[in-house]
Amino acid sequence: MSISPFAISMGDPSGIGPEVVAKAWSVREAQKLSPFFVIGERRAIEAVWDGPVATITSPDEAQKHFETALPCLQLDMSGEIMPGEPSVDGAHCALHALEIGIGLAKSGAAGGLVTAPVGKTQLYSIGFTHPGQTEFIAERCGIARNNAVMMLAGPSLRVVPITIHIPLKDVPSTLSIDLIRTRALVTAKGLTRNFGIEKPRIAVAGLNPHGGESGNLGREEIDIIAPAIEALRAEGLEVSGPHSPDAMFHGPAREQYDAALCMYHDQALIPIKTLYFDDGVNMTLGLPIVRTSPDHGTAFGIAGKNVASPGAMIAAIRMAERAAYYRSIAPDTSGDAAGDAG
Amino acid sequence: MSISPFAISMGDPSGIGPEVVAKAWSVREAQKLSPFFVIGERRAIEAVWDGPVATITSPDEAQKHFETALPCLQLDMSGEIMPGEPSVDGAHCALHALEIGIGLAKSGAAGGLVTAPVGKTQLYSIGFTHPGQTEFIAERCGIARNNAVMMLAGPSLRVVPITIHIPLKDVPSTLSIDLIRTRALVTAKGLTRNFGIEKPRIAVAGLNPHGGESGNLGREEIDIIAPAIEALRAEGLEVSGPHSPDAMFHGPAREQYDAALCMYHDQALIPIKTLYFDDGVNMTLGLPIVRTSPDHGTAFGIAGKNVASPGAMIAAIRMAERAAYYRSIAPDTSGDAAGDAG
Repeated sequence: MSISPFAISMGDPSGIGPEVVAKAWSVREAQKLSPFFVIGERRAIEAVWDGPVATITSPDEAQKHFETALPCLQLDMSGEIMPGEPSVDGAHCALHALEIGIGLAKSGAAGGLVTAPVGKTQLYSIGFTHPGQTEFIAERCGIARNNAVMMLAGPSLRVVPITIHIPLKDVPSTLSIDLIRTRALVTAKGLTRNFGIEKPRIAVAGLNPHGGESGNLGREEIDIIAPAIEALRAEGLEVSGPHSPDAMFHGPAREQYDAALCMYHDQALIPIKTLYFDDGVNMTLGLPIVRTSPDHGTAFGIAGKNVASPGAMIAAIRMAERAAYYRSIAPDTSGDAAGDAG
Repeated sequence: MSISPFAISMGDPSGIGPEVVAKAWSVREAQKLSPFFVIGERRAIEAVWDGPVATITSPDEAQKHFETALPCLQLDMSGEIMPGEPSVDGAHCALHALEIGIGLAKSGAAGGLVTAPVGKTQLYSIGFTHPGQTEFIAERCGIARNNAVMMLAGPSLRVVPITIHIPLKDVPSTLSIDLIRTRALVTAKGLTRNFGIEKPRIAVAGLNPHGGESGNLGREEIDIIAPAIEALRAEGLEVSGPHSPDAMFHGPAREQYDAALCMYHDQALIPIKTLYFDDGVNMTLGLPIVRTSPDHGTAFGIAGKNVASPGAMIAAIRMAERAAYYRSIAPDTSGDAAGDAG
């Protein structure tokens, strides 16, 4: 089965999205990247890059241009584009690109969707109500928010935070056996579908120092995390833990699992960003479509200065390619695509 | 000023302490280590190592034996020594070695103290009442517990946790402007005394995801951490933050500071152990003596199997040497040694 070209939503046209997409295209041969196209305003690319851009009107034109020019599914945006200076027009363009990208990936016209970063402040100013792109995409795909799971990945580590953008003080009361179980199930299935790992090994972190030291330094391991692990094992998953959070991210420890399930944002983000600050990839598990994203923001401060690294964008494209490949050789057969947990 | 030999308390004789000390001695020439001696029962070394051991009765004999044998300040311990099988006799021996090591370092007969790991369960069983060796050493040195600060260090990162062995849910309510300020002052002075850094740069972490996002994801940055930073700057310290916890530990970020002040155990321990699991060093700041320790435990499970890595022990000895050197060229002149914050 041949895989369609990959769609990259440009993100905020004043951020570093246009630049890193163009730079990724520039190294397409050395990096052996599959054909992709960007969705957005080509003026944003031309403002920061002097390479060739080919306007296309549908994804199937991407293939024939990809060798010689960066294919751009053009969205005409009103107003000027100033790198580093986000605008309301730019936010509309970013959201429009995201919506089109989702539609193309859902229809199969795109092999998957890679999303460049958006400016949340700008999106909120035009009525966007979701915490981020992930939740918007989940909704458009008909997936309940808790079943769309954020995974961050680098070459030797994949992490899934169970709680994400909440104050640290709210983490203990937000954790539950059911939440851990749900995230773990989506993670396990996602590792199989997107990475071809037949029997994924999931390492579950503790919450407290040294994993609570048998209850002396906190009881969440005993009351919540260990029972969740037991439940998952009873369902046939290969799950270890609760692990001492500080002893599970060094090299030899990372080899023991395919993904680490973390209790809070920084427990997941600190190790991945310590190791892979410039080339981490955000992948959403649980969606009917392939969706990845470079794990960095709009970086308005450096936009247009030709210093942004395309490493994470290239890694995000590559991860989308592989996920599409694994899905193509083992299509999901668990039933309703909109309700699956892949 | 010549520096006395360094004392290494053997720690639990059934743990990996004896083995890593012996292995460190074995590479003394290649690693250019200054003379040191171990305090403990030589039978524990002979049980796991067949190299030469020289019994000494006072530190000044260490120098003359160091080239040809591992000097051991012998503590006769009753009972058998079985690697991997801790005993009450072993706990007494470990505690005795620690006490002697502190005394020798305080008197100047030892240039500093490196402590090998003890078994806490075993120590508790013989009436030890402190959370760990650090607190015991602080008490013996006449330093209030809050003024003895644990720093963990690897080649490119030093971290200081502000709260340590408490449940994660208690962290937000334990943090205070004063606690952060106290730890930062001890840290800054410790960096100067032990590392020769004249004007230390301290990076203070936030508590919440992304540092709280202006209060949207938690208020501790606004209510506690930022005011503490302001207070420290007013006292002339070079302090940055609150930083987004996930964005301050990658390579280029680490170059911007000399130590990271972290709000809780795993915020400090995850990055240091992700990077330096096998050669991290624990140094206590704020003491009148130099005290370091390899950042690993007794590892009873591998004791006697000749697989323990001496990397952290070697790094701990080297850090003690350097601290003694910096102290010797710039002795503390801030007044009462017992009350200083070095």
